[in-house]
Amino acid sequence: MADDKKLTTRKQDFSAWYNEVVLRAELADYSPVRGCMVIRPDGYGIWERMQRQLDDMFKATGHRNAYFPLFIPQSFLAKEAEHVEGFAPETAVVTHGGGKLLEEPLVVRPTSETIIYAMFAKWVQSYRDLPLLINQWANVVRWEMRTRLFLRTLEFLWQEGHTAHATHDEAEEEARRMLGVYRDFMEGYMAMPVVTGQKTNSERFAGALRTFSCEAMMQDNKALQAGTSHNLGQNFAKAFDLKFQTEAGDEAFAWNTSWGVSTRLVGGLVMTHGDDKGLRVPPLLAPTEIVIVPIWRTDDDKTRVLDAAHKLKASLVDWERREPNRLRVHLDARDNMKPGAKYCEWELRGVPLRLELGPRDIDANQAVLVRRDTGVKQMVSLDSIGEEASALLEEMQDSMLTAARDRREANSLRGEITYDRFREVMEGEGAFVYAGWCGSEECEREIKEDTKATIRVLPDEEFRSAEPATRCLKCGKPSTMEALWAKAY
Amino acid sequence: MADDKKLTTRKQDFSAWYNEVVLRAELADYSPVRGCMVIRPDGYGIWERMQRQLDDMFKATGHRNAYFPLFIPQSFLAKEAEHVEGFAPETAVVTHGGGKLLEEPLVVRPTSETIIYAMFAKWVQSYRDLPLLINQWANVVRWEMRTRLFLRTLEFLWQEGHTAHATHDEAEEEARRMLGVYRDFMEGYMAMPVVTGQKTNSERFAGALRTFSCEAMMQDNKALQAGTSHNLGQNFAKAFDLKFQTEAGDEAFAWNTSWGVSTRLVGGLVMTHGDDKGLRVPPLLAPTEIVIVPIWRTDDDKTRVLDAAHKLKASLVDWERREPNRLRVHLDARDNMKPGAKYCEWELRGVPLRLELGPRDIDANQAVLVRRDTGVKQMVSLDSIGEEASALLEEMQDSMLTAARDRREANSLRGEITYDRFREVMEGEGAFVYAGWCGSEECEREIKEDTKATIRVLPDEEFRSAEPATRCLKCGKPSTMEALWAKAY
Repeated sequence: MADDKKLTTRKQDFSAWYNEVVLRAELADYSPVRGCMVIRPDGYGIWERMQRQLDDMFKATGHRNAYFPLFIPQSFLAKEAEHVEGFAPETAVVTHGGGKLLEEPLVVRPTSETIIYAMFAKWVQSYRDLPLLINQWANVVRWEMRTRLFLRTLEFLWQEGHTAHATHDEAEEEARRMLGVYRDFMEGYMAMPVVTGQKTNSERFAGALRTFSCEAMMQDNKALQAGTSHNLGQNFAKAFDLKFQTEAGDEAFAWNTSWGVSTRLVGGLVMTHGDDKGLRVPPLLAPTEIVIVPIWRTDDDKTRVLDAAHKLKASLVDWERREPNRLRVHLDARDNMKPGAKYCEWELRGVPLRLELGPRDIDANQAVLVRRDTGVKQMVSLDSIGEEASALLEEMQDSMLTAARDRREANSLRGEITYDRFREVMEGEGAFVYAGWCGSEECEREIKEDTKATIRVLPDEEFRSAEPATRCLKCGKPSTMEALWAKAY
Repeated sequence: MADDKKLTTRKQDFSAWYNEVVLRAELADYSPVRGCMVIRPDGYGIWERMQRQLDDMFKATGHRNAYFPLFIPQSFLAKEAEHVEGFAPETAVVTHGGGKLLEEPLVVRPTSETIIYAMFAKWVQSYRDLPLLINQWANVVRWEMRTRLFLRTLEFLWQEGHTAHATHDEAEEEARRMLGVYRDFMEGYMAMPVVTGQKTNSERFAGALRTFSCEAMMQDNKALQAGTSHNLGQNFAKAFDLKFQTEAGDEAFAWNTSWGVSTRLVGGLVMTHGDDKGLRVPPLLAPTEIVIVPIWRTDDDKTRVLDAAHKLKASLVDWERREPNRLRVHLDARDNMKPGAKYCEWELRGVPLRLELGPRDIDANQAVLVRRDTGVKQMVSLDSIGEEASALLEEMQDSMLTAARDRREANSLRGEITYDRFREVMEGEGAFVYAGWCGSEECEREIKEDTKATIRVLPDEEFRSAEPATRCLKCGKPSTMEALWAKAY
């Protein structure tokens, strides 16, 4: 149960606020294993709803789920040169099995390109076997030194899509399509707006031709890389001999893509929507959408109110919000807590709507509905409460996205900016800065060393400025492209 | 794609038949990692349907999902004496992380009692926090020397339920309840009948007070332990200091249960229902329930038939079988295969119903429906095909369970049996033998050494013989309980 102490505010210490919300809303807990966390039922419930929705979207775009081994022979990682350089330093290694030293150590998968494309090579013979569109829901391990609940942990849960195509252009289209699916999910379900675009060479996935990313702004104005999609080119196909016979009868290497999102999204949800009272969960992802808090003083009232509350819950659960979904309702019938304490607890846990029901409400055939996002209260007739609650939840879903987008835009800087001003912003309140870039890795690296800000993406067209800066933020030479700079998680 | 060679028959070599069906129906494949398999989309699709159904049943009985770390400190395993003895010899051990030797090696979870009850100890303070009803969907690793696809692999996927209760009796009730859920699932969805009962002391889970099991008979008359449920007593609570304040204000150790089923169930499904043509999937678990095979000779016919087949598929998908489920239909429109070859392939893959549609069928407004379980064909009017197909699928689901139960009963022996005859049976065709047992571990061990048969369970009342044997199968002393003997996977 949540304790009564007030949360640190976001303004006082955003990072402390985040940890307190995650722990006290019981989304997750520290575990006895360094850097590994436990995802508690309230956090896992959000992840389950994310999974379900993403899985439906993957299937609607033709993908099928499969499962590949947790362990990868160490020699596999080494087959793609950039890949091993990127991942080998952060692996966990199994050296003993069944009490014996293994001949070849096994790496706990940090990502599964190598083992998956080794299998694809076995399954794909002809152009008729392409495209091969596979997704895996799995745990992966990366040996991080500094960990944060949900945002960066040694082990995390994710999905990784892996596909093989006959041509470069089909692979590019697939990588782009899945980036779009991620964006639709993040905006439509998480109410978390993102900027999409391409990563620079220095930030792309180890072994990829091109990496695309969805970048979201957290309430401390830092960026969260929320999901990435890679056109892997033929790098892994060549490393694992993934060839096929073309329609013309030739032999060719396949083109691959991979794409993933993880439990990090739960952290992104907290940092996008939480406030100083705690969590706010967008209705579509909330395991509980409505909590009923019955109010009574006398024992007589208690019986009457609880009875009415149970009936109300039953009628709401039956209310068909959007086929085939029903309203998800919890009745908080605990008799060892005052209503006020319950309000605080459910606010901390982020349930979108609170429904207060007392003896006088019952007499008047009404109840009080309180929105978690705005705190606005309204009286609603018990006759139309399903309709009203459904409408409110849909409205909340939209207005949470709008509010997050407005906040992001208010904290974005576009057009000409001096490097001094840029440094000042990055050292201070932070921002998404759309600035000119000459395209040199040197300028990119110097700015990063100097300010800790990085190019999050070269934004896709719709995110670019109407009047972009004409000079490179760092060297002042003519800008060849607009780059989105921010500090990041 | 499945190749054309005939399957080894079950009679020729059951074990070879099993491997061929799993590989050629593309349920799974061998991986480059010793003892680890890849679950391919057709196998994973069955597992996903199993998961969805079990998950609904767990939630309906009050359980919530959570996720605990993959890695367990080696010292944790050692805290419960029987547990470490049972599991330590078969663990995979991570000794290096991020390029460095770890201070304490980490075990890849073989099961999660230790890490989960360590967390429960942190979360549970009062009787008000009980019962705590948690489930986890996860991968686990046990270093097996002899592996078989789905049945015994180094890594497998499973769910593990873990609960804490205030009293012994509540824990016992929970362990029993979940055994019942497993049975309902296995019989109601897998069409796989099981015998339930208690394990003997020598076969119970390492660290448990009592283990209950569901035992199914495969077509080679061997038993498959399909799911187990354990009353763990206070063994883990004492090892991990999982205490709570009782309503009376005292301090007491909690009582735990754990229960699990795994991807092994997919193997059980194959060995329960497969035939010499391949797999037969019970309709409720079939990713595809109906495959439409269009038939044409001329190009004109092809256009007409494919057009009609697409319309038929659309109308079937819209057919509401049982709310909110729709018929799951695949149209095999490949133009590089003859219908006969398609029939064989879909029989191999086990799709419950085949729908053949040719030009003359369209003229007559009809189609041919073929049941995979019996091979029976029937003409059906296109006007009522959704209704007919739905009814057939329900009938198949029931008749597959009946057929499997009849087969089991035909291969079960009850009442007095001499030890010589018992040995003969176990060396020959095998059976479920309900025999008398004096209760001594010595008789149990000697029979096992002698015949490789083990006591699968001490059967629950409804499975016991009306006239049980009165003497112990081995020593001839008076029987104190009836035991179910079989060789097992």
